[in-house]
This record gives sequence, C-alpha cells and structure tokens, in this order.
Amino acid sequence: MKKDYDLVIVGAGPAGMSAGMYGARSGLETLVLEKGISGGLSNEAPEIENYPGFKNVRGMELVEKMKEQVSEYVEIKELENVERIELKENQAVVFTEKGVYVSKAVVMSMGARHRKSGAKGEDEFLGRGVSYCATCDGFFFKGKSVVVIGGGDSAVREALHLNNIGCDVTVIHRRDKLRAEPYLQNKLEQSSVAILWDSVVKAIAGDKKVEGVVTHNKKTGKDDELPVDGVFISVGEEPNNELATQIGVTVDKNGYIITDKSQRTNIERVYAAGDITGGVRQIVVACAEGAIAALAAYDDLLALT
Amino acid sequence: MKKDYDLVIVGAGPAGMSAGMYGARSGLETLVLEKGISGGLSNEAPEIENYPGFKNVRGMELVEKMKEQVSEYVEIKELENVERIELKENQAVVFTEKGVYVSKAVVMSMGARHRKSGAKGEDEFLGRGVSYCATCDGFFFKGKSVVVIGGGDSAVREALHLNNIGCDVTVIHRRDKLRAEPYLQNKLEQSSVAILWDSVVKAIAGDKKVEGVVTHNKKTGKDDELPVDGVFISVGEEPNNELATQIGVTVDKNGYIITDKSQRTNIERVYAAGDITGGVRQIVVACAEGAIAALAAYDDLLALT
Repeated sequence: MKKDYDLVIVGAGPAGMSAGMYGARSGLETLVLEKGISGGLSNEAPEIENYPGFKNVRGMELVEKMKEQVSEYVEIKELENVERIELKENQAVVFTEKGVYVSKAVVMSMGARHRKSGAKGEDEFLGRGVSYCATCDGFFFKGKSVVVIGGGDSAVREALHLNNIGCDVTVIHRRDKLRAEPYLQNKLEQSSVAILWDSVVKAIAGDKKVEGVVTHNKKTGKDDELPVDGVFISVGEEPNNELATQIGVTVDKNGYIITDKSQRTNIERVYAAGDITGGVRQIVVACAEGAIAALAAYDDLLALT
Repeated sequence: MKKDYDLVIVGAGPAGMSAGMYGARSGLETLVLEKGISGGLSNEAPEIENYPGFKNVRGMELVEKMKEQVSEYVEIKELENVERIELKENQAVVFTEKGVYVSKAVVMSMGARHRKSGAKGEDEFLGRGVSYCATCDGFFFKGKSVVVIGGGDSAVREALHLNNIGCDVTVIHRRDKLRAEPYLQNKLEQSSVAILWDSVVKAIAGDKKVEGVVTHNKKTGKDDELPVDGVFISVGEEPNNELATQIGVTVDKNGYIITDKSQRTNIERVYAAGDITGGVRQIVVACAEGAIAALAAYDDLLALT
C-alpha cells in the first residue's frame, strides 16, 4: 500500500476531484481522501442548469461523470475520514481512520455545511422545493411563490435575487428587525418582497413537493399557513475547517480559509479550494479553484530544491 | 432593437458565455458581443480531457454545448466587433461596427492570442500535433517525443511539465542561453530534457499529423531533421487588451488585466474574466471567472441606488 505522495487532497467534492485530476495530470503522485462519498453538497442538487456545458443535469449525475473522469488519473478513497494532519519538515502526515499518508503538499477541500432551519420537513423536501442556494436553484421558481428563511446579509441577498428573477418572495425572520447591512435592508424595503416578522417556519408541507409552510409567530403565539412552491433556507453556513485550523491555517471571521489568487494558504504547500474558501458557492468555481490549487502545488514542488 | 442593458459582455469565449448566463440568470438585462464566433481559442482544442464533467470532448463540441445552454438565457451577437467603449456618468457606451449599446456594467473577456513561432506548417498541424498548451494537451503525448519552442519561463515550464508526464522532450531555443528564471533553468538542467541551442524550427512536417520538424541552426547555418510527435509552441501570448487600456483599465507588465478576487478591475462596474486576466489558462477557470464577474456586477448594481 503506497503511503508517500506529492499531493494529498482532503475532500472529494468538485474542488477536490478537480484538484486530483489536475495534480495527477501534472505528474504528481496524488491521492484524494473523502470521508463520505464523492461530490459533497452537489449530490443534493436536483437540477443544475448553470454548470457550463450541461443545459440541465442532476447533481448526482454530474458528480458521477466527474468521478469517472477523475478516477482515470487518480485514486479517490471514499469513506476514509481524515482525523488529523501533522506538519513536519516539508511534509504533511495525514492520519485517517484507516491509515497514514505522507505528502509533500495538501489541498484542503472539505467544503461547508448548511446550518439547518429546524423546520419539520426540511430534509424530506430537500431538492423538491427546499433549497439552500438561490443562485443555483432560483430560476426554477420564476413566477412562483417562495419564502426565504433568515434575516442576515445572505438571506436578504437571496430574497432580492429571487425577486429580481420574478419570484413572489416573502422573508420569514424570527426577530423584529433584520441583521443585514443597511443598504441591503433599503433594497429590500424598496422591493416588492414581503417580510413576516417574529416568525419561524415550524413545518414544510406538501405531497411530492413543497406546497406550503406552517409559520409560528413568536410574539402572538399563533400558527398560520402560507401556500408556497419553494423554501430557501439561509440561516448560515459553516465551513468544515477543523483540520485546517488545527494546523494553523488562517481563516476569516466566518471560518473560511483565506487564500491568495493561486489558492495558497498562509502555510507553505497547503492550499484550499471550493466552498471552504467562501466566496461564490458554485460548482464551476470550486472546480476552477481545485485546478488552480493543484497547479500551484505543482509549481511550488518544482521550486522546492 | 434594444440598446439599454445592465451588463454588456465583450467576447464570447468560455468566460464571456458563462458571464452572460450568470448575469441573465440573476435578472440582469445582459448582452454578449463577439467579434468572431463563440468559443474563442477553445475551438482550437482537438480534444479536452480535463474540463470537469467531460472525459473527452472536442473543443468545438464543448463550445457548442455551452453556446446552446447560454443562449437559453442571453443573446450572443456574433460577428459584431466592439470598436470602442466610452465611459460616462455610471454608464458604458459600447460602439460596435453595427450599433451602439448603453450598459451599466461591462465584463471584458476578450481573451488572448498566441504568438506564433513562424514555422511552416504551424497553422496546418494545429490540433494534430501542434499545441500551445502543455497543461491542456500534454497528456496526449505521454511516452512520445515532443519539442518545445521557446526559451522563457513558460517554455521551460511547459518542457518540465511534459517531462514530468513522461514525454521525451527537446527544447528548441533561438539563442545560446535561456531567458527563464534561474530555478527553472536549474530544474531543466537536472531533468532529462534536451536543449537544441541557437536553433529555430523552419518547418513542421508530417502526413496527417506531426511526424517531425526541420530545424535550422543559426550559428552553423545547417538544417537538420528531428522526428517528433508533438510540437509545443511557447513563444509568448498577447492579451487582447486594447479596449481595456483605452478606457484606463489597469494591466500588468505583460498586458493582462489586473482584477481582485471578485474579478473587479480598477474601474467601477468594469470586470474582467478569462485569459485576458492571465493566470491559469484553463476553460474551467475562465468559466468560473465569468460567473464570479457577473455575480459581482449583480452585487454592485444592487448597491447602486
């Protein structure tokens, strides 16, 4: 069993898979480790219309294509969780539950997880009316009624985005004022977006897909029903940055790894790509960052000795 | 004929097409202008193996898919050359040979052009053994003989990349020393790459594909033949930056447009994406930059009262 690598990639979402392919195609001994199955959150997308080259593709189908392609060049070890990484003398030692790998460079592409709203039916209707990304899925709801759950910058952005597309939007927020930046709040006020204050979504209802939500007003204590076609949940996101912060990789105030334009982190020969770096959460961007990270690793290893 | 837009995109390569799709899907009135046909240099790629999602696809085929997809959302006006752009009061006025368009924001994605080596047969064998990009095409030549024409950083990088992949590489350089950085030169010396000094490639020969090159030694005046399967030309690249520099967009010393991580240039509501920004010349990266640029334009227009 081979244990020495030029490049080990942690996480086989689109960013990690792309990094694996670019690393291996550059001649680096490359390995991709994935705690679950390849594809990350992309697997959740029922339909993707904005990945260039595919007019309409299911997330799982796109992931499968990428995996098949990438596996031509590099091994993806699935169901192998990385437990910790140790840096020593120009090497990273990667400990998984199954083995130990030594690598000259590491790409961190562990992705991010959505914070959940806690509404009943949230998991059940995921991809059938429930979404965590208006840029990804908003267009499917053109001319339809949607709610956005949340009150921060990203919730307001999602609401405005959906409004701009031509959705009938209601923001549901648990407090009596928004946390979003003033200019976003102004935009929202000027728009036709409705706001349901002091309310949470208790349950998402429907048969095969979302047909409505049950809201609960925290001040009056009353429940209400609202018929809608889509529920956009925007109550935050958490980068899976534990392995990064443990070795001293610098993250921003929200926990996203900070990189330069070549995807280098503050630690030499440690790179980051995809959702874990924040920014635009799009598959094509994750793939690009993975490619750039691997090519930067190739350059940096070339420069070493 | 509509003349007022939120976002006009100049150039319909992968970056411009992606920007068009993302702009239109965000609800911006978007237009893409292209002086020739959509796809830019991607059309030249005979085979692409490293665009995530496609195991193996002809450049023209991938371009066609993207064009069909993007045209669902936004008009691409082909064969309409932008002659100049004027900035005035929060607007860009875009003059083409056929009309005048007013836009609140502009994405510049005019791409770059390869400098040619001047060898006879260079155009004829393009995609049939002649390539301008080892990262793109090197893998097809694994285990085969190739020459790299050039002596600068990128030529040496290309040579090392090909060597790393397992090609038998000869660098052909017109002078008696390289212009590349010392560490790259050291790498090259330590590698098994051969160098043919003081020489140029006069002609590329073959039947259906490249079978060899005719070299000319400038010192001895003698011609020679070298059987090879591939010819990588790396004598430089020139960004198509004329429209950008005319309006004061900042470029680096090689003429590439400088952007921040959101693809913003130094001029408000002017963005750049793709090969014109330098960096990694990969289709997936161009697409990602186009997406990011359009989403930044969307954000910036939102912030603009």
